[in-house]
Amino acid sequence: MLQELKEKTLEANLDLVRRGLVLYTFGNASGIDRESGLVVIKPSGVDYDALRPEHMVVCDLDGNIREGDLRPSSDLKTHLELYRAFPSVGGVVHTHSENATAWAQSGREIPALGTTHADYFHGPVPCTRELTDEEINGDYVLNTGYAITERFKGIDPLAVPAVLVAGHAPFAWGRDPMDAAHNAVVLEAVAKMAFMTVLLNSTAGVSQALLDRHYFRKHGANATYGQR
Amino acid sequence: MLQELKEKTLEANLDLVRRGLVLYTFGNASGIDRESGLVVIKPSGVDYDALRPEHMVVCDLDGNIREGDLRPSSDLKTHLELYRAFPSVGGVVHTHSENATAWAQSGREIPALGTTHADYFHGPVPCTRELTDEEINGDYVLNTGYAITERFKGIDPLAVPAVLVAGHAPFAWGRDPMDAAHNAVVLEAVAKMAFMTVLLNSTAGVSQALLDRHYFRKHGANATYGQR
Amino acid sequence: MLQELKEKTLEANLDLVRRGLVLYTFGNASGIDRESGLVVIKPSGVDYDALRPEHMVVCDLDGNIREGDLRPSSDLKTHLELYRAFPSVGGVVHTHSENATAWAQSGREIPALGTTHADYFHGPVPCTRELTDEEINGDYVLNTGYAITERFKGIDPLAVPAVLVAGHAPFAWGRDPMDAAHNAVVLEAVAKMAFMTVLLNSTAGVSQALLDRHYFRKHGANATYGQR
Amino acid sequence: MLQELKEKTLEANLDLVRRGLVLYTFGNASGIDRESGLVVIKPSGVDYDALRPEHMVVCDLDGNIREGDLRPSSDLKTHLELYRAFPSVGGVVHTHSENATAWAQSGREIPALGTTHADYFHGPVPCTRELTDEEINGDYVLNTGYAITERFKGIDPLAVPAVLVAGHAPFAWGRDPMDAAHNAVVLEAVAKMAFMTVLLNSTAGVSQALLDRHYFRKHGANATYGQR
Repeated sequence: MLQELKEKTLEANLDLVRRGLVLYTFGNASGIDRESGLVVIKPSGVDYDALRPEHMVVCDLDGNIREGDLRPSSDLKTHLELYRAFPSVGGVVHTHSENATAWAQSGREIPALGTTHADYFHGPVPCTRELTDEEINGDYVLNTGYAITERFKGIDPLAVPAVLVAGHAPFAWGRDPMDAAHNAVVLEAVAKMAFMTVLLNSTAGVSQALLDRHYFRKHGANATYGQR
Repeated sequence: MLQELKEKTLEANLDLVRRGLVLYTFGNASGIDRESGLVVIKPSGVDYDALRPEHMVVCDLDGNIREGDLRPSSDLKTHLELYRAFPSVGGVVHTHSENATAWAQSGREIPALGTTHADYFHGPVPCTRELTDEEINGDYVLNTGYAITERFKGIDPLAVPAVLVAGHAPFAWGRDPMDAAHNAVVLEAVAKMAFMTVLLNSTAGVSQALLDRHYFRKHGANATYGQR
Repeated sequence: MLQELKEKTLEANLDLVRRGLVLYTFGNASGIDRESGLVVIKPSGVDYDALRPEHMVVCDLDGNIREGDLRPSSDLKTHLELYRAFPSVGGVVHTHSENATAWAQSGREIPALGTTHADYFHGPVPCTRELTDEEINGDYVLNTGYAITERFKGIDPLAVPAVLVAGHAPFAWGRDPMDAAHNAVVLEAVAKMAFMTVLLNSTAGVSQALLDRHYFRKHGANATYGQR
Repeated sequence: MLQELKEKTLEANLDLVRRGLVLYTFGNASGIDRESGLVVIKPSGVDYDALRPEHMVVCDLDGNIREGDLRPSSDLKTHLELYRAFPSVGGVVHTHSENATAWAQSGREIPALGTTHADYFHGPVPCTRELTDEEINGDYVLNTGYAITERFKGIDPLAVPAVLVAGHAPFAWGRDPMDAAHNAVVLEAVAKMAFMTVLLNSTAGVSQALLDRHYFRKHGANATYGQR
């Protein structure tokens, strides 16, 4: 069942580790097969060394397990809410990567400070509001997803493929699991450079024209980057 | 004598090195066999490359050497005081890991700034008071232990499994030596992110509700994380 | 055609990756054969693992492709403007290396804060002005080159072999592609140390005499460094 | 001639590279044979990969080359002044390691902020005054040595085995070349932690009693650290 998606989802999970975004098991990647509406996600708390495609958990968009003996990632409901609210998204990752998490903990969005940012994120990387005590004590993981999708009202999720959850850490997404992992890696680099930049100049920022130019150099019908 | 505990204690010592928490010999891990009341600890100043289980030193809770030809870690008396005061603790580690040590040197506790912290530490990671000159000139290593246990009055040591010794460096502990090492590794990551967070926002912090939610997601009877 | 220059240009591109200056494909190096006026440059968006000398693109100083099936680096026109304006330059590299990029994003030049800087850069590493919206919406990559060469009026490009493009990232250059890559690596180290230095002392700086002494120790007719 | 000292001096040079203190050829280590008064030092600007014991340059304390076809390190005269002024010193190293260099560039001494520092440096790591233009334009490398030994009037060089040269970088020394390299490595770690500490708490510092306790735990007749 969904063998190829399982392999790609596993590969995205392992890529996060190889690139230093994940300590122990503090991360997870998932992918969705839009045709069947089924989501493939990493099991919870399993060592990456031991992960095989057949360990991936398959569930539907309501969270009903359809295949797999292991419990899914404890962040499953956040992933599902993102898939439900963002139909263009094919993969989601969550990490506690150090620099992006520092921004999330500070409760500050990452402003667009340069073209590395603009190549991937067409505007600031938003930070959610803090959850209320009721939301935390209720269906917390799902409410985390709601806080994200609420924050993205009016924002195209593929134009800004990441978010900071206040007091928590980032989520990133993309067309498929590897694209989501790629965006998470770039987010971490962008967050690191932004940290240094705001210490050097607290009012730094780029113009909308530069933001547009770089974003559309890599995205959309008129993209000129790479070999397409 | 205590062969398995020696191997686990050695493994915890080596894990600290592999994960970059220890420069040269600036660290040590120990374990206790609660049944016999015997403690296994790394010898002092021996290269990690050459360490074998049989080099581990065995002593009782009063510090009497029961086995081993080498001198125990110079921090032994601090370890012993922690084992005496914290009956739930089965392993103790001490490192000079860079970020946690910077916080210890600053004399500041690490506030709970996010869920990575909350997953492991149910409240700030406390910092001891400074030792008096009398304490330093007296039984210094033991007095370091007393300063820690004094600071933990009213705190469950397994709910906050680490401390910063002011002007010195961290100690971490856990159910066994590897768990203590694991907590030391997470402490270092948390300290690094906290450093960046307070530079980005000096008033950052999470709600008690979020702290509780994440802590009890991984700990206690209602834990939902992993495959248990 | 230009086989040796292709190999050296490839080697310079790979060196940037090996030394941690390039994430994914965020960098490019080129070289020029001054006799024929032909430029060799990395193709756009190709994985470094797969790069071979025969993938390098050859073009003239007006940007006409003379050999190669792949599209050249999207930054080609900036490289060409540097070659046209700086006749002494034989290689150009562009990276988004973290520390130099943070300075570029902050819009601040890197002041000469020590002898590591002075050994390579005979004065501050300049930062360009921001481009106007018209320049961004026009021939953006070429205009980036113009902003650099405008900023270098009165500066010998081989005496200050790097620049920060405001809101973007650094360019570095040298006598040949490997020399340019070498300067980019040193720039990154200098930028990292300068970041820490200005946080420790916002008014730090070295005297002109020290700047001269170190620069001319490694450069010019009276150089005494190395085995020449 | 001095084969063993050449091997140890080479090993110290290579250790600096392995531990990440040296970029390209920005570092050098030397050793002295006190009986003959001969100094062994790395040649200038030679790749570390190609360095062999027979490449080491031998000279006397006045700088007369006694063996070797290569030019000695351009910092030779600073090394020689340290050997002349500090008779207890058997090895000297110079690096541009990032954190210690940032402190040197800031012109600030590294205060004793914790026990890692106190284990190796019995007081702040001093920073020299800036050289005058006359000193820079005169016998610059020798004058750098004079600025160091002037700064160490009243300080036991083995009790504080390192210095920051203002606007330049650190020198460290020890009983032999490997001991000097070891002190340079610890200096870099101490400098990194001190940078973070002063950002967290600009008035941090340890008591003289703690400084004494830790220093004399590792040094002198009553040392208790390790297996001696």
